[in-house]
Amino acid sequence: MRIDVLSLFPDMYTGVLEQSILKKAAESEAFSCHITNFRDYADNKHQRVDDYTYGGGAGMLLMPQPIFDAVEAVQKTSEAKPRVIMMTPQGTPYNQNYAEDLAKEEHLIFLCGHYEGFDERIRESIVTDEISIGDYVLTGGELASMVVIDSVVRLLPGVLGNEVSADTDSFSNGLLEHPQYTRPADFRGMKVPDVLLSGNHKLIEEWRHKESLRRTLLRRPDLLESRVLSDKEKEWLKEIKNEENV
Amino acid sequence: MRIDVLSLFPDMYTGVLEQSILKKAAESEAFSCHITNFRDYADNKHQRVDDYTYGGGAGMLLMPQPIFDAVEAVQKTSEAKPRVIMMTPQGTPYNQNYAEDLAKEEHLIFLCGHYEGFDERIRESIVTDEISIGDYVLTGGELASMVVIDSVVRLLPGVLGNEVSADTDSFSNGLLEHPQYTRPADFRGMKVPDVLLSGNHKLIEEWRHKESLRRTLLRRPDLLESRVLSDKEKEWLKEIKNEENV
Repeated sequence: MRIDVLSLFPDMYTGVLEQSILKKAAESEAFSCHITNFRDYADNKHQRVDDYTYGGGAGMLLMPQPIFDAVEAVQKTSEAKPRVIMMTPQGTPYNQNYAEDLAKEEHLIFLCGHYEGFDERIRESIVTDEISIGDYVLTGGELASMVVIDSVVRLLPGVLGNEVSADTDSFSNGLLEHPQYTRPADFRGMKVPDVLLSGNHKLIEEWRHKESLRRTLLRRPDLLESRVLSDKEKEWLKEIKNEENV
Repeated sequence: MRIDVLSLFPDMYTGVLEQSILKKAAESEAFSCHITNFRDYADNKHQRVDDYTYGGGAGMLLMPQPIFDAVEAVQKTSEAKPRVIMMTPQGTPYNQNYAEDLAKEEHLIFLCGHYEGFDERIRESIVTDEISIGDYVLTGGELASMVVIDSVVRLLPGVLGNEVSADTDSFSNGLLEHPQYTRPADFRGMKVPDVLLSGNHKLIEEWRHKESLRRTLLRRPDLLESRVLSDKEKEWLKEIKNEENV
């Protein structure tokens, strides 16, 4: 996969791209990432990329010209037809299905604003996806694009090694993960539940499944609404509601 | 505000902390950020921080000892009683209200795992908040913590300069932002709506308000459910539903 990022703050990306999974994925050529400062494409003498908003208003707005030219320059070098993704609080809420969809692409281009919004004609004409990573306000789209890049690249074939189990990912079965414990069995008097030390794999699996349901019910009941429950899960849910008085 | 981050990948933070708002906020002493590698607190000879999961399973899990000791070392140097925030997909969904709540604190400690989950006793005993920035899986908690830090620090007094208008933030009035346009009025044949060039401020405000409603209805109808609508807004919504056939 090829990824291009258009940003006025290219140095924000260095620490993240040069560590851990993204570094290894780049070294193994599973993906390559190129950051372009779209200020380089401004065709005016002071390399301005923004201007006042028509109709008034305090903020500045990113002008169409530098971004159109930068996107088109990247597109010219691409064999695939890249998705052009604008990071914006007005975008489609991002989730794991969206990550899996993007992971099938050959080339992604990310547009990141900073402080400022985008001229509407950028949205209308060259953007294929508008993505919001959540209902909160960030200083710019850079961190949001890094979140999307990390979540997509880890899904590319060969990127996750044995150190990671995709099975235990939250959301992979629609439930939150059950509680987990490691050594020591007694830490400052806090003990690991007996069942996990029992060696009885059937009981352990049942305990984990029920505790996943409990955690999801207590923390994210919205996730249960869209999930088809087995008879056993329905029975456990009744028990949990009794136990928790909810 | 003081922020401490406990992470096995401290170098991931450098690019983000040394740019833009976070850099300026640190220079103006609105906040300070210190990254601790909690591997330094492992009391075993190979500085291990993780171990196998009780009850079986492919992944490794972060052990309680290094994290308890690292958190307690930070707490000892704190005058405030810091919130201890675990970044986890099982956490409370993060949003702008949560950011505003955190912005009132004097000291925040972020716990970031990488690949691995946390031993349950960490959650139960030293964590005050579990936060998820969205329903997607990341390689680690580092990027998630940077997102929270950025969204909180920009709310601290004096951090946002005149270059940013908090008024135009999405979510500040519960609606998505209306379309915006800047120079030129005609870009490659794509024109700015006449009303924005009219100079009639009342008409411009009405157009913007209605287009905010339209965008919210079409993209994020969930945001309208929790909002009290004025009579004018109800009328506009009817018009928009007719215009859009929804």
